[in-house]
This record gives sequence, structure tokens and C-alpha cells, in this order.
Amino acid sequence: MAFQIIKHFCVPLAAKEPCIVVRGGASHLSLNYDKVMSALELIAKESYKLLKLKLPSTDAVEETIKFLEENPIFNCGCQSILNDPRNGQVENHASIMEGKNMKFGCVSSIDSSKHPISVARAIMERSLGSCFLVGTSALRFAEKCRVPTVHGRRMFLDISNACKKTLDTKCDCPVGELGKPSDADGCEQVDWKKCHGGVGVVAMDEYGNMAAGASCSALVGKTEAGISGEHLIGSGVYAKNTKGAVSVSGNCSQLISLCAACRLMKAKDQSAAWNILQYFSHFSDDAFGAIYINREGRIGVYTLKGQMPWYVIKGSGIRCGDYLPGCYSGFT
Amino acid sequence: MAFQIIKHFCVPLAAKEPCIVVRGGASHLSLNYDKVMSALELIAKESYKLLKLKLPSTDAVEETIKFLEENPIFNCGCQSILNDPRNGQVENHASIMEGKNMKFGCVSSIDSSKHPISVARAIMERSLGSCFLVGTSALRFAEKCRVPTVHGRRMFLDISNACKKTLDTKCDCPVGELGKPSDADGCEQVDWKKCHGGVGVVAMDEYGNMAAGASCSALVGKTEAGISGEHLIGSGVYAKNTKGAVSVSGNCSQLISLCAACRLMKAKDQSAAWNILQYFSHFSDDAFGAIYINREGRIGVYTLKGQMPWYVIKGSGIRCGDYLPGCYSGFT
Repeated sequence: MAFQIIKHFCVPLAAKEPCIVVRGGASHLSLNYDKVMSALELIAKESYKLLKLKLPSTDAVEETIKFLEENPIFNCGCQSILNDPRNGQVENHASIMEGKNMKFGCVSSIDSSKHPISVARAIMERSLGSCFLVGTSALRFAEKCRVPTVHGRRMFLDISNACKKTLDTKCDCPVGELGKPSDADGCEQVDWKKCHGGVGVVAMDEYGNMAAGASCSALVGKTEAGISGEHLIGSGVYAKNTKGAVSVSGNCSQLISLCAACRLMKAKDQSAAWNILQYFSHFSDDAFGAIYINREGRIGVYTLKGQMPWYVIKGSGIRCGDYLPGCYSGFT
Repeated sequence: MAFQIIKHFCVPLAAKEPCIVVRGGASHLSLNYDKVMSALELIAKESYKLLKLKLPSTDAVEETIKFLEENPIFNCGCQSILNDPRNGQVENHASIMEGKNMKFGCVSSIDSSKHPISVARAIMERSLGSCFLVGTSALRFAEKCRVPTVHGRRMFLDISNACKKTLDTKCDCPVGELGKPSDADGCEQVDWKKCHGGVGVVAMDEYGNMAAGASCSALVGKTEAGISGEHLIGSGVYAKNTKGAVSVSGNCSQLISLCAACRLMKAKDQSAAWNILQYFSHFSDDAFGAIYINREGRIGVYTLKGQMPWYVIKGSGIRCGDYLPGCYSGFT
């Protein structure tokens, strides 16, 4: 199976210097490049400030994803695409994992939480049973933990009133059509069929504590309203202080069947990580992308095909890029 | 951290002889030992006949789990415990994976399918998008695929009418109490707090094709209505022809954070598998149990603490046992 290598690099930086890597895969970059990259820059800088204020990496990851969830250009949180145009329902998924003790919280298919990542965090911190809650059970738990909801209404309609009219006219779309209107009044002029998935963040604080998290929504270009593997622990997200922290983007089924994040986490160096990603490519023609920080604080950003805008801050070093040929910027 | 080793063994058997291993962790064996073991025997024998009739291992796994889901003694399918006594709702989870191509189907939190494993199978075979569907999205897909439902009503009330009265009297139970009544008229005299999770099956057909599957319901002894990790690909279920097939039982969060099934799958031999299971024990005082068939057709059944009734058939060899001290039977 042929595959195109767009970019691959790994940056050695001093250990114990706090660092954060953000990936946002929300939109067709040829249309939204500047907007996505400036959003990532702003968010990464705000997040890095938190790390420099000695906040634990887990807090930094949660706060960063909250910023991303609030930004309409990313397909997560309030501004997600719909899982099914007939129902007009948001379907959010999020997870967070901290590397110190391998604790995690994971939530799938919730529709009225302002910040799905905060539900995942509450599950991680406060659940006495399963740390993977779904749907109404998860929302009930979120309510118990007083995680804010969006007035109990469907988020999309609540937040994006400007899009409501278009949504109504699309109410007889078959399942499998995209939920987010592409050219409504007040909506972004985005080709959603070319959009990528949700967002992911990995961070290390000055104590060497790792954390990883992801937040995403209905699959773009979906044929069924399934969940994305990007937020599943072991598939898309993994953190362990003795190894590092990783967030992987890609085809849901491939991420899961390959246990992609868990496998990538075991890479001992840049070359091993790259080999693993190449191994993944034998199973799929779809894109894979990964951001990670290893235990020495070395940062890696990898993709096989596709686009994955990213932003890295460590000390005075700032790097960013995406993988759309022709508008890549970064360091090699 | 101290842990008690109850049993451990691995049985070398000739390759390419079809084989099946069934685990059922449904009830407190001191009360139900004979019932559980005779149900497992009956089901394993029926399933083995299917393999001898040259059915692919994936079909055998699905059919076996259907038998288990129909049996009221196991906590899966129709006779599951409730996720929350106030709502009286069943919350089923199931998955199936075939080792030939690493395809899988996974479903979480559905409440009105007669056979959750068949929904997972339909997802594996027919979904063009995500292979992990949840809740209403999953049920909509199941309906499209004509997988039978239980009259669209909540299963528990539909199937176990005898228990309804007790359920009603328990309707003000706090979240976290057990849903299945313990001593109602017509119900089993079972101490559900001592019950284990759902069921798992691994099989190899005469072509050496591997398959693994699991079906489970709300957590027994739960404090929140979370999902079990036993049905998640990579955590509880994994199959790959070049390695084998595995089904792991244990604490949900530990299964997920350790990527238990995926990790156990990499064991090259009996001793390696045992070392991995011992490694798991460092992270939890809870029980772990695993059944697997490796690519040479060697069968392994392992537990650390706890009970896990199991049944193995390969050729003329039949083995069975559980891990309740004092009533163990099997081979060493």
C-alpha cells in the first residue's frame, strides 16, 4: 500500500522545561489557515502561561482544551457538527489522562455539557466506579459534580442560533449527511467534508508530570453517527510519566484496532515512533497524526498524509505548522 | 502490593484443532456453582459443534455469546442488572473482533436489543464509518440492520416481570445501589454485590482464524453507572491471527489504563503472559482474569484473585473450572 509522507520530525529540548503541544484538526486549512493557526497560537500561549505559573500539566491540558472547545473553528464542545441532521444533536466525546498515576476520565456521547473535557476531568477525579461514562449516565454524573451544562438544550441550536435556519431546511437529510451547514448566514464558509477531527493536547510540567487529553465530536464525513477513537484511552490518548504523553488523530476504527496511542507510547526514540506510524499505514489509507512529549521532554509531531495544524511551546522555543503541502511552516 | 494467586495454567494442544474458551462471570459461585458450570458446559458444547461444522470462529463467538446473553444467570443481554434502580434501565455493552483482518464492532450503552453481541457484529460487518457506536446512534443502526429489539421497552421490565414489584419498592434507592433485586419473588437468590462482570469468548476455527468477543452490562457493585472495560477493544477484547485471541475480565479503569487485552496479546508464551498479569496486579487490588488462545492453538486461563468460571473444549479435551477456593476443578 502506497502512502505519502508529508512531514516528520522530532525536537530535542532540555528536560523538565515545561512544554505543551496542541493539535487542532477542525477545518479545511486552505480556507481557514490563518484563522486556525492564530487560534492555536493564542491558545498555546495562554496555556503555556499556566504551566509557567506552576499549574500541574493535567490542569494545563484541561484549560487548553476548554479554550479549544470554546472556539467555533474546532470540531469539539459547543461548536461541534451534528451527529445526524434529522435530529440536530451534538455528540461530544472527551478524555484526559495523567501520567503520574495513569488515572483517566473518559466520556462519550454527551450533548449538553459546556465543556466535555471538564466532565472527563470530573470523572477522573471523582468517580468511584468506572472512569468511562456514556450518555445520560455521564450527564447525571456531571450534574452531580456541578459541571456547567448549556441550559439543558441541544448545544448546537443553543450556541449557533445563526445556523438554525439552515439546519431546519436540512431536516430531511439522510443519515450520513453532514450536520454542520456549510454556507448558512452567519456560519463559516467551510467545506466540512474536508475537515478533520477534534483537538488534542499533551503537556509536561516542570515536575516532569505528563498529561494528555482530547475532545472531539461527530465524525466529519461520517456514514454513521459513531464515536471517534481520538478520545479513547489507549487508542487516541495516553500518558505515563515513565514514557511520555501522546495524542493521536486518525481513522477511528484504525486507532482502536491498532491501540495506536498505547503502541506509539512505547517508542523509545524518534525513529521507533516513526516506524510505528509507518506500520499503522499498512492498515489504512487514511491519515494518522500524532503529537507527543517523551519522558525527557523531547517533542515529536508526526503525520502520515492529511492535515494536522499544531503548535508547540517550550521555554523560549515556539514552533508551529500544519501539513497542507505548500503552507507548512516549522522546523526540521 | 500483596496479591493472592489463585490459579494459573496453560495447556499445550495441537494447532489447527478448533477450540473454544468461554468465561462467565455472572454470579456468586458459592450459591450458584452448579448452575453456572452446567450452563457453561451446555453452551460450550453447543458452540464447539458449530466449529466442527466448519463455521468461522467469528460466527462461533457470536453464537456462543448469544447463548450466554439468553441465560438469566449471566450479567449480560436480557437479564442484566440495572444501571440505576431509580430508572430501572438496562445498559448493555458488547464487542466482537476477528483476527484475520483485525476488524471489530463495539457497542456501548444500549437498552433494547435482544442480543447486544449481534449489534456489535452488525456494526463490524456493515458500518461504513465508526465501528464503535453508542446509545441511540447504535440502536438506530441496529434497527437499520434489522437486529431484533425487545419490543422497544426497557428489557429488564420486559423480561423479568417477576422482579418488577421489588424494583418498584426500590425506586428511591440512591444512585450506586445495585439494580437487580436480591431476594424478590421469582428472582435468583444471589448476592449481587459479590457478582462479577459479563461474559467473554475466544475461539479458533480449523483455518486458524481467531475471534474474541465479550458482552456485559452495568457494573456490579457500581457507584456510578459506568461502562465496563471488558468489552472495549484493546482493554478487554483483542484478536489477531498472528498472535491469538484474548478476553480479559477485571476492574474497568485498570483494564483501560493498562490496555490490558492489547498488552496481554503480545505475550509470546505462558510465562510471559503470567508476568504481564502479575504486572497488572501492581496497579490494582482488584481481580484480573484472562482467557486466551495463542496462534499455535495453545489455551491459557489465568486469574489473579477473584472468581472466573470457565470452560474449554478442544478436540476430545474438555476442561473447566472456576477460581473459588475449595471448588476448583481443572488441570494443572
